[in-house]
Amino acid sequence: MTAPNRNALWARTFVDELARTGINAVCIAPGSRSTPLTEAFDRHDDIETFSHLDERSAAYFALGRARRTGDVTPIVSTSGTAAANFHPAVIEASQARVPMLVLTADRPPEIRDSGANQTIDQEKLFGDAVRWYKDMPEPEATDRKLRGLRTSAARAVSEATGADAGPVHLNFPFRKPLEPVYVEGDVPDGLSREALDGREGDKPYVKTERSVPELSEDRLRKLADELSVDRGLIVAGPADAPGFNSEAIVALAHATGFPVVADPLSGLRFGGHTRTTTVLGGYDAYLDERVTDDWADPEVVFRIGASPTSKPLRKYLARTDARQFLVDPTGRWREAEFTATDLLEADPSMLAWRLSQLVRNRPDTEWNQRWKDAEAAHWNVVESADEAYEGKVASTVADLAPEPATIFVSNSMPVRDIDRFGRPSEQSRTVLGNRGASGIDGITSAALGAGSATTDHLTLLTGDIAYYHDMNGLLALGRLGIEATIVLVNNDGGGIFHMLPIEEYEPPFTDQFKTPHGLDFSATEGLYDLSFQSVSPDEFADAYADSVASDGTDVIEVRFDAESSHGVRDELRERVVEELTG
Amino acid sequence: MTAPNRNALWARTFVDELARTGINAVCIAPGSRSTPLTEAFDRHDDIETFSHLDERSAAYFALGRARRTGDVTPIVSTSGTAAANFHPAVIEASQARVPMLVLTADRPPEIRDSGANQTIDQEKLFGDAVRWYKDMPEPEATDRKLRGLRTSAARAVSEATGADAGPVHLNFPFRKPLEPVYVEGDVPDGLSREALDGREGDKPYVKTERSVPELSEDRLRKLADELSVDRGLIVAGPADAPGFNSEAIVALAHATGFPVVADPLSGLRFGGHTRTTTVLGGYDAYLDERVTDDWADPEVVFRIGASPTSKPLRKYLARTDARQFLVDPTGRWREAEFTATDLLEADPSMLAWRLSQLVRNRPDTEWNQRWKDAEAAHWNVVESADEAYEGKVASTVADLAPEPATIFVSNSMPVRDIDRFGRPSEQSRTVLGNRGASGIDGITSAALGAGSATTDHLTLLTGDIAYYHDMNGLLALGRLGIEATIVLVNNDGGGIFHMLPIEEYEPPFTDQFKTPHGLDFSATEGLYDLSFQSVSPDEFADAYADSVASDGTDVIEVRFDAESSHGVRDELRERVVEELTG
Repeated sequence: MTAPNRNALWARTFVDELARTGINAVCIAPGSRSTPLTEAFDRHDDIETFSHLDERSAAYFALGRARRTGDVTPIVSTSGTAAANFHPAVIEASQARVPMLVLTADRPPEIRDSGANQTIDQEKLFGDAVRWYKDMPEPEATDRKLRGLRTSAARAVSEATGADAGPVHLNFPFRKPLEPVYVEGDVPDGLSREALDGREGDKPYVKTERSVPELSEDRLRKLADELSVDRGLIVAGPADAPGFNSEAIVALAHATGFPVVADPLSGLRFGGHTRTTTVLGGYDAYLDERVTDDWADPEVVFRIGASPTSKPLRKYLARTDARQFLVDPTGRWREAEFTATDLLEADPSMLAWRLSQLVRNRPDTEWNQRWKDAEAAHWNVVESADEAYEGKVASTVADLAPEPATIFVSNSMPVRDIDRFGRPSEQSRTVLGNRGASGIDGITSAALGAGSATTDHLTLLTGDIAYYHDMNGLLALGRLGIEATIVLVNNDGGGIFHMLPIEEYEPPFTDQFKTPHGLDFSATEGLYDLSFQSVSPDEFADAYADSVASDGTDVIEVRFDAESSHGVRDELRERVVEELTG
Repeated sequence: MTAPNRNALWARTFVDELARTGINAVCIAPGSRSTPLTEAFDRHDDIETFSHLDERSAAYFALGRARRTGDVTPIVSTSGTAAANFHPAVIEASQARVPMLVLTADRPPEIRDSGANQTIDQEKLFGDAVRWYKDMPEPEATDRKLRGLRTSAARAVSEATGADAGPVHLNFPFRKPLEPVYVEGDVPDGLSREALDGREGDKPYVKTERSVPELSEDRLRKLADELSVDRGLIVAGPADAPGFNSEAIVALAHATGFPVVADPLSGLRFGGHTRTTTVLGGYDAYLDERVTDDWADPEVVFRIGASPTSKPLRKYLARTDARQFLVDPTGRWREAEFTATDLLEADPSMLAWRLSQLVRNRPDTEWNQRWKDAEAAHWNVVESADEAYEGKVASTVADLAPEPATIFVSNSMPVRDIDRFGRPSEQSRTVLGNRGASGIDGITSAALGAGSATTDHLTLLTGDIAYYHDMNGLLALGRLGIEATIVLVNNDGGGIFHMLPIEEYEPPFTDQFKTPHGLDFSATEGLYDLSFQSVSPDEFADAYADSVASDGTDVIEVRFDAESSHGVRDELRERVVEELTG
């Protein structure tokens, strides 16, 4: 490592160490105070730089990459409110256990709280939302300090990843000169080789080995007995990045004979395993009390992942008498109906695999048939429906996306629509969303970030409020060379509010909740590197098929009346219920 | 007060109490959990609601209103990352002492940290950036709780305003039903009149009287003696909202005979007082060592407001031997050159007024003439320059804005350009900026918020990165019926980086610092309620004059090469120095 001054040495050493842990990309927002970090990242041959002008979008972009890969993409900002713009994505990363490494530049200590320009209190800026915070020492070219720096880099990546993945925030004070200008005596001769150049052979300075949480052998055998029952369910909620090992979960499904209730964000809704496994996807419609009142309760529910998207599913689980095992690798609680009876601290995939070696149930024919019948009724109703409604767009995307596809779904209605109308299939799809805090902010950037990390075709299924909220994220298309098919379900405002009782109160419904904006999004074609077309619901399937077969980014807008879409959703549910109870 | 359930009663009582403290506007972002607050604000006849779809823009809009008025405009969000989007503006409000009241809805306590949807840890979400945080109790219709609620409302406004104005955050847990549906027994009979309806005669429940910080009579007399010298300066930095009392400052200038060095954000650069007072505006150019080496030092500097925008001014103050009195109403330190000798905890306007009654200097003719000569040289050079450069746009705005005008200037170059090229004049202008943290985020929203609070003509002088960063803020034009002339100085990227040594390093200069984006902002005309025109520097004055004379919002883009503009700035400085030393 050579460097013309201590700041450059400090930043280059840190970045060198990050690269040794496997980091190969970074998101950088321009700024002056962060110059040493920016310069060090930019000059590193093995690290791709993604430059963003809006820090909020930058952070969501990095989040999306990590969502897709499970690996960290650091984000860099200058001092001041720039750093605070990361906060929404930091919270999402914390809630959703997505690895994130926030690197903020700061003024040196003597300038803090002095009234100096662009100087805020960045210490613990993100409060309890980070797994680790460190105010880095001032750069200095000594062996001990450089060893400490390399250790911090290794630790930061380790704390951000693993079972309890989440954001880590390192705050770097720098004093001028910030650019790589030569400063006499700033980098003395005689520094130790390891401090200066790191471990031999491109190895990390500290190779960190994290444990995999596993149950004891005794507890495992007992659990296998407890799962040896006639009626059970495997409920897979949204997966932590990079997802479950689907072979392990499927092995458990086969061993237990339990159907898999697969949230679209579980990674288990789609894929080859659906040929041989009962994977359920229509529960959001048929888990209605009028249907399930007739059913025997499950004896056991084996729950993995976060709380499922589907409210009818959560309510169903709450009203069964089943013993509910909540498997969580961090031992934390993600079950807000408070009906779980057992919390198991274990890696879900590993546990499923080990259990699959011990359990040998004979599937309960009647129990399984109930679910299969319900599925058949639901998909029959959905596929024979000729109404135009928003859910049809989601089902079309699930059907027609090319293989392999990464499909990013916005919050509010898109994730609910893909949940109810995305039929399980053998096709290879990675469906992702921001379900940690379930905000509608940063959706476009998260999707494009996910797309930047894969050669999959990328589809973003989003609504008009989310599209508006992160329009700035579209700059990444042209600037960073990312392509996507963006499906914009435009119901001119907060369509989800039609699902809520506030719909009956006018005012304030239209002005404060529905908030129709009348935005003509075709104008985004003039700003960003995309082709915009607005199509009718009938034309959507063809337009989508054309888009995925061609290069470049298309935005395909489909306009709907939110209220009427909700009406169709309700009507389809009624038809399913009728078919199952009538 | 009547209400169909406890949530509605709670929110309506709170809003009623806010209105009694004088609050007459609110910014609301749509969301479900905040329904009781939204409904209560919406139904209050004396409170205007500003609906925003992007919480980041909403918060900056409210900040801009408070910047203009000194009064609080509360901001309301639902739970989750929505609230975190307020963070940048919260920090700006804290740093710049702008009143702000953040009202976040939250899930009830049993749901927090449970894995429930859209539920994050909102407690102390903004850390030390708020003056007061309170996790509100759960709504309940009892006398004691309602008295507590009214007291909290009064306290929140009081904590957010006054000398140490800044953000206050109240976090409101609500459980369903959130809409104003009737709930039997939820609001019992027999509540006391004062709890239910507040104090008689629309008075606040607790009328809060804050002290005005004043020096003792003894200290005042001593200070008057200390200011009785031949050579002094009054340095007015950016003012806390709603600004200094210019009559008081002018009275002190007359009594002491000291020139007033008036930052453009001090409120003292423009106005009728400039007829009778020596107000300096060209210091950023002529406070060059080559010029001032010849000058006698000031004996005394009387500093009010925040740290001045001009770096040459700050450096000049640092190299004088003057006794420097830093007057701050909160007793806090805003002087990062560390050259102040005395910190006086006092209201600057009140102190200036009291001192003006005690001091009777005879102006030092030579001292004052130096400054007048320097001013004359500077404005002569500026006004005879025929080069096209960004600063000319700023000076044109300062000259041609109608009376009265509110002029909001972005950070980075616009505030520096208005500082150096906005000539002091008798015209009525209120120049505002976000100089707390000096971010380029939220500029458009802050400007439109300021505009929403006044009948002044509004001009926003901004750059392309700031325009891009808060494009979402433009939605307020049409949705909220605000008009402005937006002057967009477009140099395709971060022009300010050409001022920094990193300019010499390529890479990473262009890709990571300058970051040219090539955005064609004319497309914003298709999205928002504005007319867009791109004019040459020569055409700008006419285009601006036309715009201010007509209704509606115009964006007037003037394209520049940042590097060449910096060249002209440097050249003009050289001409001034030459004229003063040659």
